[in-house]
Amino acid sequence: MKNPLSTDFVLGFLGAGQLARMSALQAFRYGMQVAVFSDRPEDEPVQFMTPRSYSGAFDDVESMMDFAKACDIITLENEFIDSSILFELQKRSGTPIYPAPESFELIENKLIEKQTFESAGIPVTPYLLIKQADDLTRFGDEHGWPYLLKSSKGGYDGYGNKTVKNSEEAQNAFKKLGGDAGHDILAEAFVDFTHELAVQVARNETGHVVYPCCETVQENHICVAVKAPAPVSGSIQKRAQEMAVKATEAIHGKGIFAFEFFLTKSGELLLNESAPRPHNSGHYTIEGCVTSQFENHVRAVCGLPLGSTEMIRPAAVMINLLGTQNRPAVVEISKDALAQPYAHLHSYGKIQSKTGRKMAHYTFLGEDLEATYQKALTLTEKIEI
Amino acid sequence: MKNPLSTDFVLGFLGAGQLARMSALQAFRYGMQVAVFSDRPEDEPVQFMTPRSYSGAFDDVESMMDFAKACDIITLENEFIDSSILFELQKRSGTPIYPAPESFELIENKLIEKQTFESAGIPVTPYLLIKQADDLTRFGDEHGWPYLLKSSKGGYDGYGNKTVKNSEEAQNAFKKLGGDAGHDILAEAFVDFTHELAVQVARNETGHVVYPCCETVQENHICVAVKAPAPVSGSIQKRAQEMAVKATEAIHGKGIFAFEFFLTKSGELLLNESAPRPHNSGHYTIEGCVTSQFENHVRAVCGLPLGSTEMIRPAAVMINLLGTQNRPAVVEISKDALAQPYAHLHSYGKIQSKTGRKMAHYTFLGEDLEATYQKALTLTEKIEI
Repeated sequence: MKNPLSTDFVLGFLGAGQLARMSALQAFRYGMQVAVFSDRPEDEPVQFMTPRSYSGAFDDVESMMDFAKACDIITLENEFIDSSILFELQKRSGTPIYPAPESFELIENKLIEKQTFESAGIPVTPYLLIKQADDLTRFGDEHGWPYLLKSSKGGYDGYGNKTVKNSEEAQNAFKKLGGDAGHDILAEAFVDFTHELAVQVARNETGHVVYPCCETVQENHICVAVKAPAPVSGSIQKRAQEMAVKATEAIHGKGIFAFEFFLTKSGELLLNESAPRPHNSGHYTIEGCVTSQFENHVRAVCGLPLGSTEMIRPAAVMINLLGTQNRPAVVEISKDALAQPYAHLHSYGKIQSKTGRKMAHYTFLGEDLEATYQKALTLTEKIEI
Repeated sequence: MKNPLSTDFVLGFLGAGQLARMSALQAFRYGMQVAVFSDRPEDEPVQFMTPRSYSGAFDDVESMMDFAKACDIITLENEFIDSSILFELQKRSGTPIYPAPESFELIENKLIEKQTFESAGIPVTPYLLIKQADDLTRFGDEHGWPYLLKSSKGGYDGYGNKTVKNSEEAQNAFKKLGGDAGHDILAEAFVDFTHELAVQVARNETGHVVYPCCETVQENHICVAVKAPAPVSGSIQKRAQEMAVKATEAIHGKGIFAFEFFLTKSGELLLNESAPRPHNSGHYTIEGCVTSQFENHVRAVCGLPLGSTEMIRPAAVMINLLGTQNRPAVVEISKDALAQPYAHLHSYGKIQSKTGRKMAHYTFLGEDLEATYQKALTLTEKIEI
């Protein structure tokens, strides 16, 4: 294979959003070139960063072929392209895709994903594949109402999921999610947790590295902040890291992966979600760790040795800056927020701001986690985007 | 003025080499767009990083107009465009240029530069404007042979300079440099120094920040390594920093500036060179300091508040990775060099490697300066580019 540290080496991104953008910045740092394929015609964050911009449909291999042939290695910034498409694209173009289509195959179907992780000895949130109408009621009675119904394919930020409070709602949701049409529908229990935790792992043929266990702070199912390291005991942190490494191995991961856990009131750790890509929970690593998740993403998919995940300072806090209104994107940030030592701003280059859209983030490093978090909240509360 | 943190804000770079490239990476981080103007048709490091790429001649304002009109603010990565061109480009396009043409006017002519800094009370290397043939001999007799003859305009890495060992060589060099044709020629004494030091300063209407005083290690007049902080006393470091701030103020600098000093055997600090741009001596700041010289460059020219220059760890060493042969660029780096914690590689995306050409650099952070330097040398000695 071509040395990825050649100037004519092209790293391709399927998807052109902020995760690809922050990864591309690292690829540039290594002297690589960057190509991007988007299913939107223009004005995506990465398209301003390269003359090698392609567009088409994520379910149309033919429309991706020019892009794929222009790349030495392809990676992804999301998990919504069917593995069958990835297999075909890889085969027809001859360009390797990492994480490999085989890994996507194991996680794109929520049932297979849960079975894969369970087989590796990793506790997951209680679930049931709904085979008959009775199962819907039985699951609620056993694990408590309300619970979640999920289509086994698709689903992101609440899309493809329904919260059901009783048997009737469950029957209706089952139909709406396509249960009658033969789609696999899973019931998943709500977990009574004290913390939501996340861990990133980078892995390739040279080995693996694991990031600190962090806490994600969610509001209305959207991550609004991340605290690293998570304010839980060292032994819980270590257990989450071990589970994340095991999970990465279980899917034969080559790349960067993020795993989200529930820490239950009884001290159990349950794997909730996995993501085969850089993850919002790891944005703090850009300045918070010696090597960021984006740098290790690029290293991992290119087969380069992985960098240290050690934290630069004892505490790191990342605040997501969500759109505060619908308008052309502009970050109105106070001078104070920017001039603060150990404060770092990243804006994603999205043309349009929308209320609640992830537009930018703010990272703040410090000595004490809670003080750092409180100060970060104060510094960012007046930001308008 | 448009908020520079708008997604449609375009920061323009005159020059498309590694300094513009590393600055552009920071502009992207703030969500800005980047445009670049190069006097080479293609394959310059920044041209792979933006669809907004222009080319023409640095002495032809007309050829720069499309570029200038596409930008909200223009900055430069070198000091070789005549200030008269910058004044005209700024006037005709209406796009502000920072550092301002007025600042370039004060440093592009070596005589005016020296007089400007001297008037501000900053000691400079001994020099004389040659007005008659006698001056050539007199200067050598007074300040020692050999000495340096410099054309007052132009000159970079030895170009436009001549070392002269006696009167006859001085007369010949004077003619070759255009002294007979009316160009101002300066004699400049060689200084008997113990260290070559450098300091970067970022400054704009919000204030200024000054970086640690570092040492540049030169071989054959090319910087091969930088040590930060410089292994000299704290009071000398502080004096160099104060002189650098004073020098920035003397040229009304808005942007990032680098100043190189000689520390003489008798403990004197003499200002040797100034650069109105990010500088090789400040590459260590990317990982070595809370805010890199490139980030503060972007902040400074855009009028944003400046970031902390505090060092992340006690010692930082930057090794320039020069081309080891003439071939298409590829960095052959050992796994060990890359996997080392606190080691960071930057490759500039130059298509062609040439022996001695600055192709990449390697930064290594540590606790003890000399140990860090020795380890960095060992880790990089086998790198081929």
